[in-house]
Amino acid sequence: MKITFSRFDLRLKHTFTIARGGRDVSPVVIVELEHGGIVGYGEAAPSARYGESPDSVSGFLAALNLTAFKTPFELESILTYVEKAAPGNTAAKASVDLALHDWIGKKLGLPLYRYWGLEGGKTPRTSFTIGIDSPKVIEQKVREAELYPILKIKLGGDNDEEIIRTIRGVTKKTLRVDANEGWKKREVAVERIKWLEQEGVEFVEQPMPAADLAGTAWVRERVNLPLIADENSLRLQDVPKLQGAFDGINIKLMKCTGLREAQRMIGTARACSMKVMLGCMIESSVAISAAAQLAPLVEYADLDGNVLINNDPFDGVRSLDGVLRLTDRPGHGAVRLEH
Amino acid sequence: MKITFSRFDLRLKHTFTIARGGRDVSPVVIVELEHGGIVGYGEAAPSARYGESPDSVSGFLAALNLTAFKTPFELESILTYVEKAAPGNTAAKASVDLALHDWIGKKLGLPLYRYWGLEGGKTPRTSFTIGIDSPKVIEQKVREAELYPILKIKLGGDNDEEIIRTIRGVTKKTLRVDANEGWKKREVAVERIKWLEQEGVEFVEQPMPAADLAGTAWVRERVNLPLIADENSLRLQDVPKLQGAFDGINIKLMKCTGLREAQRMIGTARACSMKVMLGCMIESSVAISAAAQLAPLVEYADLDGNVLINNDPFDGVRSLDGVLRLTDRPGHGAVRLEH
Repeated sequence: MKITFSRFDLRLKHTFTIARGGRDVSPVVIVELEHGGIVGYGEAAPSARYGESPDSVSGFLAALNLTAFKTPFELESILTYVEKAAPGNTAAKASVDLALHDWIGKKLGLPLYRYWGLEGGKTPRTSFTIGIDSPKVIEQKVREAELYPILKIKLGGDNDEEIIRTIRGVTKKTLRVDANEGWKKREVAVERIKWLEQEGVEFVEQPMPAADLAGTAWVRERVNLPLIADENSLRLQDVPKLQGAFDGINIKLMKCTGLREAQRMIGTARACSMKVMLGCMIESSVAISAAAQLAPLVEYADLDGNVLINNDPFDGVRSLDGVLRLTDRPGHGAVRLEH
Repeated sequence: MKITFSRFDLRLKHTFTIARGGRDVSPVVIVELEHGGIVGYGEAAPSARYGESPDSVSGFLAALNLTAFKTPFELESILTYVEKAAPGNTAAKASVDLALHDWIGKKLGLPLYRYWGLEGGKTPRTSFTIGIDSPKVIEQKVREAELYPILKIKLGGDNDEEIIRTIRGVTKKTLRVDANEGWKKREVAVERIKWLEQEGVEFVEQPMPAADLAGTAWVRERVNLPLIADENSLRLQDVPKLQGAFDGINIKLMKCTGLREAQRMIGTARACSMKVMLGCMIESSVAISAAAQLAPLVEYADLDGNVLINNDPFDGVRSLDGVLRLTDRPGHGAVRLEH
């Protein structure tokens, strides 16, 4: 089993701004895992929020020694080794998980959704994300998103009302709001969420800082809109702790170390009667296509990371009228393009 | 996809007695699911404790209509339909789940453990169960179990002390105790568990009635031995509720509707930092072999149901020195014998 990897800078169509800041380029690390003539592709989209960078990913991957493993089918043992190799490094770990799953799907000639017993036609609609921006740019982005029936709006900055007013000025579409921990005070969060309910918002993601779980539970008792955890829902063991504070979880492969743990998080969310959303970072079609394979299991998808870039090195899952269309290609289904 | 099924009476080597009663014959229903020339085998071992019987299983299976499904690979959709077909009926539901998984494994040419990314060599030792009986019979059973390094002792009747004294008179082996809800009072449970700790017992299963979860939490605060849930751990949604009362769960395919939910229960138990044991009813090698495929994921196995009978219609997983030996056979690996 041979792992190689290289950095790739994804270029954003628009400067992408959330409550924590903005950027024009988003670097990822693409992984190739070769065994028996089959190549599985993985991707790490490192986030500074969780202490990762392209360099930390490369360092983590370079230090792995997979010689003890005979085949990617030893998935559980390999991923247990990868997990223990170092704490954190969740995007780096996810890149190995994705490459292993892609390899297995290709070896069996099965798309991953079928390998997992799911139906490709049963995916939810995916939302299209509108970052924090000026009214003029937001109006333009809403127009560009005309094929998407659901918009996910980033709030939590100083101009929440202006953004919603701008969007509601041009569309009546279903809106989902992601505050990215932006509301620091409970009372502010309650007031904003009640206002958003009147604006036809479907749910609110991560209203309060992850460190203030008790505050989120306090807010939840006072609002009607469902609250979905994101920064509070990183790994499997976070999920049971969110009962009482959140109604659902956003699972991101880059936070949870990949498809295997993501499946366990989905099962645990069901055990806790919580809804599940699949989210993403700015990612190429490798990671987006991989996450999309799990979409038939969840209520909400926010898998638009590859739509926000203009130099995707892979071709994978696409959405039609906002619905993710899984292909018959084996593995996660993302194939490398020649650039 | 064609399902056929027939009742089979498993004959017990010894009358098997637990806190709720005893029996000599244990009826099961064997299921055959045929599609595209491949047959997947399933089994239901119905338990009166949960309102099932061979007749209820047959009635449930006869009422299923799988014509809407094109292939067993539509596992999630099929099992969702089966789940909703009627409440309860967990063993009947499990028989369909097992047959579907067996079919998929055979179609792919993979043992289920490998299909799930596990290693066949990483199974824990399985215990051998000694039912409630007279000292003379118990001594004989302990001798018959000489190849098993771990004994699971059924207590919760009137002669707990006599049983343990008899067993400790002939062996120093690791003992696990299953009280099957037999201790009705908290104080009695605490006293018995403290005594069992001194007798070298590893853990205690279901000390108190399932309805008294608060009582079990009270007991747990006062004892050192781990407590494992059995009658309290039926389905996926039970698992998060056991935090604080139990240290682990016993998963039985016949209670949880099969391998798919069992995997989700294992994931949820990990999310809750709980240990996992795979248990069984009196079952043929079909259901035992199916459960054994999951064994590389768990700490404890109690998969001896097929060892307690003398007319097993299938040949499947065996144990050597108490360790489950998974074969290279595809699916769950149980093949029908000619009787």
